[in-house]
Amino acid sequence: MRGRRSALEHDERWARVAWTYVSESRSTTLARLLEADGAVESLALLRAGRVRDRARALGLRARVADLEGWEARIGELDLDGLRRACEHHALSVLVPGDESWPERLDVLGEPPPCVYVRGDPDLPALVDRSVALVGSRAATEYGLRAAGDLADGLVARGFTVVSGAAYGIDAAAHRAALAGEGRTVAVLACGADRAYPTAHRGLIEAVARSGAVVSESPPTAAPYRWRFLARNRLIAALSGATVVVEASLRSGSLSTAKEAREHHLPVGAVPGPVSSATSAGCHALVRDTGAVLVTDAAEAAELAAPIGSDLVPARDHGPSRPGDHLDDTAYRVWSAVPVRGSATADRIGLAAGVRAESLGAVLAALEADGLVVRDEGRWRKRAR
Amino acid sequence: MRGRRSALEHDERWARVAWTYVSESRSTTLARLLEADGAVESLALLRAGRVRDRARALGLRARVADLEGWEARIGELDLDGLRRACEHHALSVLVPGDESWPERLDVLGEPPPCVYVRGDPDLPALVDRSVALVGSRAATEYGLRAAGDLADGLVARGFTVVSGAAYGIDAAAHRAALAGEGRTVAVLACGADRAYPTAHRGLIEAVARSGAVVSESPPTAAPYRWRFLARNRLIAALSGATVVVEASLRSGSLSTAKEAREHHLPVGAVPGPVSSATSAGCHALVRDTGAVLVTDAAEAAELAAPIGSDLVPARDHGPSRPGDHLDDTAYRVWSAVPVRGSATADRIGLAAGVRAESLGAVLAALEADGLVVRDEGRWRKRAR
Repeated sequence: MRGRRSALEHDERWARVAWTYVSESRSTTLARLLEADGAVESLALLRAGRVRDRARALGLRARVADLEGWEARIGELDLDGLRRACEHHALSVLVPGDESWPERLDVLGEPPPCVYVRGDPDLPALVDRSVALVGSRAATEYGLRAAGDLADGLVARGFTVVSGAAYGIDAAAHRAALAGEGRTVAVLACGADRAYPTAHRGLIEAVARSGAVVSESPPTAAPYRWRFLARNRLIAALSGATVVVEASLRSGSLSTAKEAREHHLPVGAVPGPVSSATSAGCHALVRDTGAVLVTDAAEAAELAAPIGSDLVPARDHGPSRPGDHLDDTAYRVWSAVPVRGSATADRIGLAAGVRAESLGAVLAALEADGLVVRDEGRWRKRAR
Repeated sequence: MRGRRSALEHDERWARVAWTYVSESRSTTLARLLEADGAVESLALLRAGRVRDRARALGLRARVADLEGWEARIGELDLDGLRRACEHHALSVLVPGDESWPERLDVLGEPPPCVYVRGDPDLPALVDRSVALVGSRAATEYGLRAAGDLADGLVARGFTVVSGAAYGIDAAAHRAALAGEGRTVAVLACGADRAYPTAHRGLIEAVARSGAVVSESPPTAAPYRWRFLARNRLIAALSGATVVVEASLRSGSLSTAKEAREHHLPVGAVPGPVSSATSAGCHALVRDTGAVLVTDAAEAAELAAPIGSDLVPARDHGPSRPGDHLDDTAYRVWSAVPVRGSATADRIGLAAGVRAESLGAVLAALEADGLVVRDEGRWRKRAR
């Protein structure tokens, strides 16, 4: 039976659950009402038909459509049913003030009233070191591989991977994290009890076992389009950094990057071939928004880690070559010694612009280093 | 016959030619001497064995090896022979103060005493709008294609391409510029009369006909290794921007980027697959040195062009989609209308969080826009 009043409405935690049913997420009006009056009192005002007056009294310029939506849905609220669903699906309900409430969500101007978690409810520990890997559903082989390599390297470094649960980059990131026996978090745009896309039911179950499946929508909530946009802000806010692995200029994953940027969280983007439309969004992020170019897991970790830890090791510029360590004069002399054939010291000195008096000592030093050999009064480079 | 004194040593232009034979390029000592005394007087001092004293008097901390080199080579100088070689190979000699001296070279701390030009001697006009395209000799198909696309697009925009004459990126850039009937400039590490690598003789000839072949080394000078490093500063300084198309972490083309950066000239880098070692140098330029990520000719042109001109046109974010222009409420209603099957207005309103009173008007507007259709009292999305 729907629309029953429940005693749970007098409990702050469950009143917040009620609000996730009554209101769409991302409502500034709701955020301000909860701040001012708490969830129980606000819900009572809605029940009493007085929430518009209250919003006005608080100086909130609430959208009429929002308030109408609340008034329509409160009549359908079945809070006891939501509680049963949470219990049935083993969903934890986290609210601000809980020890397991991820304080990172407090950066959001419109934080969710609560979050639902399936799996490990200790979200703060789970995302303490974490990177969001997001990108196109229509990913290429290149992008899928890059996502997999990043996830694999990140979990090897003890990072948790955060993503959605879509086809393409999201799934590749989760799968590689799971294969690496790492922890991974999927933030859904539907209820945390559901699996969307349904083809990913098994994957989402595995994610819940390794880490957590998270949503701000109540059990049974459907994956409406606008919820994906709202969900993206949670992915960004929960993660130490957001890395877009592959994205066209129209990819929804760019909105995750935008959320991260707007909340002053680090954003990275993986480059790809300039001829690939699915890398164009990543390139635009680097060019136009100052996103950091990320080519491997070490760089992604550096982006997400607290300052001073997880710095990228000094880049390996390849094996040193003969001549690298020589001073300028010795380098010129060495360069002027032929590779094929041989030359007299005079000829070498002239080519290198070094006079005979200095030349002898330089050639002797090069010979001692094994870089040149003397051959019947002439000189040649030693074969490498 | 070598080592003859020539009357040309009393002519400032030809004395500068003499200095390009006597000294290796990039000598601070020489640059300061020429500034202080001019080329004729400095050469006379060298002839008289008094150049060390003069350098000391000027407070120059000259390297002994440099001065020894000068003293060794002055005995071999055949200035009349150099002049004949210039005439024979139709090399123009440009010196500071000439109308055709490229003033851009004046940014260099160690400018060449003169430059030799085969082809169009009006270098300033030739490089006024120009982009250096540089990169690995061991380029991949991807890099060669990117270089070609960039060169093609740049000459179509009226830009001159500047590069070396090596295998790989250099050659691909020149060839595409020539194929596009554009102008292109090759800066050589050997004399401008020579062709190095010799396999590129035909290409270098074609470059000279289209634009210019440039060197700071005198005719017949050999392509010693150190001359490539010195040459790279000329490529950077002559060009409006330097774009590295493909480079490993050890690529010599990174030194061209470094020269550009050190002289506060714009540097771009073309991204590529993160799995490609020949793009790693480009990625490092963007990450570590703030090079601008460049994905096409329009972006390369923007980098090189005077401020305000040649701006990249607003990026095309693809065709708009249904729903793009809707306000938030209409978007939610539209999203809640099923794609397959249909739903009642009540069901849609509940899903979208919009009350029945507002819903009718919103659905009617969506219907008028052709986004939804009414079907026996139920609603469905119109097929795209």
